Amino acid sequence: MGKGALTRSLEPLMRPKSIAIFGVSGDLTRFGGMPLRHLINHQYPGKIFPINAKYDEIAGYKCYPDILAIPESEEIDLALVVVPAKTVYETLKRCIQRGVKAAIVFSSGFAEIGGEGIEMQRQIRELVWDNHFLLCGPNTDGIGNPHERIPLGFATSMELLPPGNIGLVTHSGAVMNSIVYRCWDRGMGFTYHICAGNEAHLESSDYIEFMLDDPRTKVILAFIEGFKDARKFLAVADYALEKHKPIIVLKVGKSEKGSKAAASHTGALAGSDKVYNAVFKQKGVIRADDFDDLAATALLFQKCPLPKGTGVGIISVSGGAMGVMADKAAELGVELPDLALHTQKELQRLFHWAKPVNPFDLTGQMASDPSLLPKVLKLFLEDENVAFLVVTVTPFPSFFDEKFFVEIVEAARNSPKPVAVCTIRGFLREQYARVLTQADIPILYTPDECFRAIKALIDYSQFQERYRTREQNSRGLEPPISNPELEKMRRELMSTTRVLTERQSKAILSRYGIPVTKEALARTTDEAMARANDIGYPVAIKIESPQITHKSDAGGIRLNIQTAEELASAFAEVIMNARKYNPEAEIAGVLVQEMVADGLEVIIGISRDPQFGLTIMFGLGGIFVEVLEDVSLRLLPITRRDAEEMIKEIKGYKVLQGVRGQPPRDLDALVDTLLKVSRVAEDLDDQISEMDLNPIMVFETAKGIKVVDSLMILNQG
Amino acid sequence: MGKGALTRSLEPLMRPKSIAIFGVSGDLTRFGGMPLRHLINHQYPGKIFPINAKYDEIAGYKCYPDILAIPESEEIDLALVVVPAKTVYETLKRCIQRGVKAAIVFSSGFAEIGGEGIEMQRQIRELVWDNHFLLCGPNTDGIGNPHERIPLGFATSMELLPPGNIGLVTHSGAVMNSIVYRCWDRGMGFTYHICAGNEAHLESSDYIEFMLDDPRTKVILAFIEGFKDARKFLAVADYALEKHKPIIVLKVGKSEKGSKAAASHTGALAGSDKVYNAVFKQKGVIRADDFDDLAATALLFQKCPLPKGTGVGIISVSGGAMGVMADKAAELGVELPDLALHTQKELQRLFHWAKPVNPFDLTGQMASDPSLLPKVLKLFLEDENVAFLVVTVTPFPSFFDEKFFVEIVEAARNSPKPVAVCTIRGFLREQYARVLTQADIPILYTPDECFRAIKALIDYSQFQERYRTREQNSRGLEPPISNPELEKMRRELMSTTRVLTERQSKAILSRYGIPVTKEALARTTDEAMARANDIGYPVAIKIESPQITHKSDAGGIRLNIQTAEELASAFAEVIMNARKYNPEAEIAGVLVQEMVADGLEVIIGISRDPQFGLTIMFGLGGIFVEVLEDVSLRLLPITRRDAEEMIKEIKGYKVLQGVRGQPPRDLDALVDTLLKVSRVAEDLDDQISEMDLNPIMVFETAKGIKVVDSLMILNQG
Repeated sequence: MGKGALTRSLEPLMRPKSIAIFGVSGDLTRFGGMPLRHLINHQYPGKIFPINAKYDEIAGYKCYPDILAIPESEEIDLALVVVPAKTVYETLKRCIQRGVKAAIVFSSGFAEIGGEGIEMQRQIRELVWDNHFLLCGPNTDGIGNPHERIPLGFATSMELLPPGNIGLVTHSGAVMNSIVYRCWDRGMGFTYHICAGNEAHLESSDYIEFMLDDPRTKVILAFIEGFKDARKFLAVADYALEKHKPIIVLKVGKSEKGSKAAASHTGALAGSDKVYNAVFKQKGVIRADDFDDLAATALLFQKCPLPKGTGVGIISVSGGAMGVMADKAAELGVELPDLALHTQKELQRLFHWAKPVNPFDLTGQMASDPSLLPKVLKLFLEDENVAFLVVTVTPFPSFFDEKFFVEIVEAARNSPKPVAVCTIRGFLREQYARVLTQADIPILYTPDECFRAIKALIDYSQFQERYRTREQNSRGLEPPISNPELEKMRRELMSTTRVLTERQSKAILSRYGIPVTKEALARTTDEAMARANDIGYPVAIKIESPQITHKSDAGGIRLNIQTAEELASAFAEVIMNARKYNPEAEIAGVLVQEMVADGLEVIIGISRDPQFGLTIMFGLGGIFVEVLEDVSLRLLPITRRDAEEMIKEIKGYKVLQGVRGQPPRDLDALVDTLLKVSRVAEDLDDQISEMDLNPIMVFETAKGIKVVDSLMILNQG
Repeated sequence: MGKGALTRSLEPLMRPKSIAIFGVSGDLTRFGGMPLRHLINHQYPGKIFPINAKYDEIAGYKCYPDILAIPESEEIDLALVVVPAKTVYETLKRCIQRGVKAAIVFSSGFAEIGGEGIEMQRQIRELVWDNHFLLCGPNTDGIGNPHERIPLGFATSMELLPPGNIGLVTHSGAVMNSIVYRCWDRGMGFTYHICAGNEAHLESSDYIEFMLDDPRTKVILAFIEGFKDARKFLAVADYALEKHKPIIVLKVGKSEKGSKAAASHTGALAGSDKVYNAVFKQKGVIRADDFDDLAATALLFQKCPLPKGTGVGIISVSGGAMGVMADKAAELGVELPDLALHTQKELQRLFHWAKPVNPFDLTGQMASDPSLLPKVLKLFLEDENVAFLVVTVTPFPSFFDEKFFVEIVEAARNSPKPVAVCTIRGFLREQYARVLTQADIPILYTPDECFRAIKALIDYSQFQERYRTREQNSRGLEPPISNPELEKMRRELMSTTRVLTERQSKAILSRYGIPVTKEALARTTDEAMARANDIGYPVAIKIESPQITHKSDAGGIRLNIQTAEELASAFAEVIMNARKYNPEAEIAGVLVQEMVADGLEVIIGISRDPQFGLTIMFGLGGIFVEVLEDVSLRLLPITRRDAEEMIKEIKGYKVLQGVRGQPPRDLDALVDTLLKVSRVAEDLDDQISEMDLNPIMVFETAKGIKVVDSLMILNQG
C-alpha cells in the first residue's frame, strides 16, 4: 500500500504450509484437542507437528517433546499455542529460536485481566517486535481460511468454515462466530475470518491490509472495539478506497455502558464514538447498526453493482406493506423519487386503478394478467429517477409461481441497475429463493435491514464517485501563508505562554485571512479612549492577561460602551476586578474592541483526540451546542466538501438558512473559515492542543463573518 | 364494554355455523374456488351452501341457483361474497331478505378506486346499517378462526391457520399474511386473524372489542392505516386496559410517502402521525416499529409476566456481544442498572477476573466450571435492581449442552421475574430451543428486536400499574369554575366574534386562575397614560381590534415604553398604523400592558384534530418550536402525569431545568397551567377551535408563570 504499515507478508500466519501445536491434548474431544481435530476434519494438506512430551503420537501424527526436537530439515510456518499464560513467553522464545515464522496464542490471562497480565503482554509484544515475528492474539479464538480449508483455532466457526469473498476481522471469538453464522445463513462465505484477540502485535488494520491485497476478498467486515493505532487504520481505509473494497464496521461503544463493555473485554481503548463517526464519514467506511444489519449490508455489497444515483424504486404486491416500506425509507433517509412522467403515463395505460406512484402497488390486476410484471419491472428499471429497484414479496394468493421470480431475474439481467427482493424469512419457497440467489439477486428479510443496506450502498457509491473524481482529495484552500512566515510564527509560539491571549490568538487567525474584530491593546485610560475613537463607538473592553483565561468570571469584560465617559469608568473597573480576581496575574492592559451586531453566533473548535489527532468541530452558539450537543466533527485536514457537510449536518442548519424573519447567512464565508481554521491547526499541528473560536458572528449572505472571541492553547508553554 | 360501540355480537361473522358462498367456482383450484377449498381442507364442521346456477353440486355440496332457493328450514349465519362489485348491493339485499346475519365481501372496486366506487360503498354501507346486518369488507381477504378451523377467505394465511392466543386485525390482506407467517415462524398462533378491508361497516375497533371479550385472546395486534371512527378506538383502548390485554399497533403513515401509500390503499384517513403517537401514549397502546418488531413484541407479551421494575440484567458468554447489547439498550432507552452491592460481592467471589458489572460476561471460566451458571442466574434474578433478565447465547466452543438451557429454565421457574434468551437465528439447536419454548421462555434473534420488545413490556407494565392505582384517571385540577359561571361565559362567547382579542382571551384564562399580564384597554392617550401609571413603567402597548389578529404585522405593537412622553407618541403611531393596515377594522383602542422580564418563553396551544378532537401542545418558544419542531402533544383531557410527561419529553427540557447560568424554572406552575388550559378547552369544547398562549413567561422555581399573549378562535362567530 505504499504507506507500508506492514513490511512483511502475513502468509505464514494466514496460509501456513506447516503447523506446530503447543499444549495439544491427546483426547481430540477435549478443549486442548480441538485445533488439531478441526485440522484433521478439514483435511489440512500441510504438515502437522503436535508438541507434547506425554505422547509419541496423536491421531496418527508423530508427537514431539519440544519444538527443538523437530528435525532441522522441516520448515515450520506457524505455531498454535494453547499453554498457560505464564509459559507463553518461553514458548514463543523457543519458536523464534527454531525459526518458526508466526504464532497464534489462544491463551488468556493477559491485558484483559489487568495487573500482571498487562505486563506479560508487554513482554511478549517486545519479544515479537524485536524478532520480526508474526503474532495473532493472545486471547484469540483463531483464524479461519475457508478456501484452503485451514482452520486455525477453537472457534465453532472453524467447524463451518464456509468459503466466499468476505474478509472478517473481530476482537472477540464469540462475535466472530456470530457473524460467520449469520452470513452463512444468508448464503455468504469468507476468504478469512480472523479473531484478533488482544492484539499484542498484529491488529485489525494489519489483517484488513492483508485482505485488501487478497484478490479473492471483495468486501471487508470488521467488529471494532477500538484501534491500537488509529493512524494506521486511516491509511488502511484510504487503501481500501483505492482498491474499491468496502469496509463495513460494527463498532461498539456508542453508549457509556457499551464502551465499558468493550473496554473490559480486550482492554482496547474504545475512544470517543463521535470521533469514530467522523472518521468513518471522511473515509467512506460503512458503519453497521448491529449483527443482522452487518450481514445484510455485506450481502448487498457482495451482490450488487454500485448504483449510479440515489433514487430507490419499489414494486409491491401489497398496499399495506408499501406504507411500512415508505415509512422506513423516510426514517433512514432513503430517497423514494417520483417516477418520470413517461413512466407514469405508461403505468396509467397498463393499470385500471393503480396510481402511478412510487412505491407502486401491482394490485389484484397483476394476478389476472401476469404479463404485466415484466412490463412494470422494465418501466422502473428504465426510469431515470430510479437507481435501485426493490421488489417486495409478501404472501398473496396465487401470485407467486416460479415465473414471477424468473421475470425478476430476466429484468435484472437486462439492466445495469441493482435489484433486490425484500420478503419475509421462511416465506419464500426454496426453489424460488434459488432462482434469485443463482442470479445474484440479494434477498432481504425486513424493511429495516433492506433500507439500511441500500442506504449504505448508495452512500458508498456516491463517496467512491467523489473519490474517483479526486474532488475528495482536492484541498479547498489556496494559498496558505508562506513557509518563512510560518517558520517565524512557529518560532514565536515556542517562546510564548501555553495559553495565548485573545489578541495573540486572533493575530494568528488574521494571518490566515480569517476576519476578526477590530481591536487594539490599551494600557492606560487615555490609550483606551484613543483606540475607541479609531474603532468607533460602541466598543467592548476585555482584560488581557495570560493568567486570566475566563475573562467574564474575572469581571474582566464590559460590553456596549457608548461614550468616552463610560469607557473611562469601565476601564478602571475592569482592571480592579482583574487584580482582585488574581493578584498574581500579569495584566498586559485592556483590549478595546468593536461591538459586532446582527450576526448569528456560531462556534468552531479544534481539539486533539488521543487516538486520531486533531479534530475540528462546528456548531451554532448557545443552546444548540450546550443543550442539544448539536455539533459536527471531522478529523483534520478537511476538504471543501467536508466543510459543507459539517454545516449541513447539524440540526440547526435551518437557522443558518434563515428562520423567524432572520435572513440567510453567508455560508460561503463559513465554509472558507472552516477551511482556514483547519489550515491553521494543520500548520501548527505539533504545537497546538486546542483552539476555540467562540463566538463567530455570521452575517447575511455575501457579508462575511467575524471572529469575536478566540482562545488557543499550546502543547507546552 | 358498557361504552357499547357495538350492540350485537359478531358471532355469526366470526364463528358461523353455516355458510353460503356467492360466486363460487366449480374448479376449486381457481380463484373463485379457494374459499370453499380452504373450508374443505380444514374440515369445516358447519353447513355449506354453494350458490351458482351453473352447477347442481360442487365438491359434494348441493349447489343452489339462488339464496332464496335454500330451504327455509336452514338457518344461514354468513355469506361469502365473490361477485363483481356492481352486483354486491343486490346480493346483500337478497341475503338480508333471506335472513342471513352477516357477510364477508371480497370483491374490490369500491372506495379504494375512488369515483363511483365510493358511491357504491356508501350504498352498501347504508343497506347494512339500516338492516342491522354485519359486514366485513368489501375488498377484504377474509377472516381466519384457527381454533375452530374456520377459514373464511382467500388469503394464503387461511392455509396455515395456526391456533394460539393472539388476535390480529389489519386493513390489508397481504399484511395479514405477512404477520401470520412471521408469528407462526416464531411458534405463535391466533384466535382470529382478520382483514378488515375497506371497513364499509365493521372497523378495526369493532373487531378488537370482540376479541377483548374473547377469553382465549391474550394479546391484540393491529395493523392500522387510520381509523374511521377515532373516538371508538379510544373507548376500545380504555376497555383493553381494563381487560389487561395489550394492544400492539403497527401504524403506517409516519412519513409523507408512507401516509400516501396508506391512503391510496384503502382510502382511509391516515391522520396526523403525531396525534396518533399522543393517543397511543395516553392509552398505553404499544407502537411497533415494523413487522418483526411486532412479532417479537407479541411473543414477549404472550410469554412473560409483567416486570415489576424497569431494570434489565444481561448475562452473556461474549464480551463483544455485550457491547452491542449495551449500545442498543442505550439507544432504545432501556435501563441497564448497576448490580446491587451484595450481588457484586458474590460475583467477585465466584469469578477470578470477570468484573461484577451489568452486562455480565461469564468468560471462559464458565466453560471449565459449568456449576457457575445457576449461581449467576440466581444472583441476577434475586438482585433488587433487576426486573427482567436476558441471557445472550452466541456461538462459543463447548459451552452449550442441553444442561445450559435446562439451568435457564430452572432459574426462571424459581423466580417471578421474566427471563428471555437473545440468540442468533439458525444457531440454537432444535432440541435446545424446545427446552426453552416449552418452558415459555421467549427466544429473540437480534439485540434490536430484543430491547424494543422489552421496552414495550416494561412501559406497558408501568402504565398498567399507574392505571391500576387510578393515578391515571385522577383528574389533576380542583375545583374548576362553577357551573353558572361557566354557563354565563359560554353564553357570552355565543355573541362574540369568531376571533377573540388578546384581552378577551386572557379574561377567560384569568377566570381559571391562569396568571396573565397586568393590562387595561385605553381608548385615548390620556386613558393610556392613566393605565400605564397604574401598571407601572415600562409598558407595552398593543392595538385591539377583532379584525387584526396579527398585531405585529400591522405595526400595532410597541414594547418597552419607558415614559409618558414615549407612550403618547407610540399611542398615536400604533393607531395610525392599524388604520393604514386595515381601514375597515373596528379599533377598540390600545391595550396597555406590563413588560415582563426574566422569564423563559414557552408555548401552550390547543387545536382540533379532525379525527380525535381537541389536543394540547407544549413547547419552548423560539427555535425549539420553529426550527426543531420540539413539541409534545396529548389529547384532552390530560392528567397531572400527562402534563409532567409533556414537559419532560421535549428535547429542550434541559433548558427548563436551567443551563448557561440560567436558573431552573417553576415546573409546578407549568404543570398547573397545562392542567388549567386543558380544563378551559374541555369546558368550552364545542365552542372552541384553537387557542394559543404564546409566549408564556416561566419564572424561577416557586415564582410562577405569566401569559404575555394569547389568542382564541371559536368554531363560529
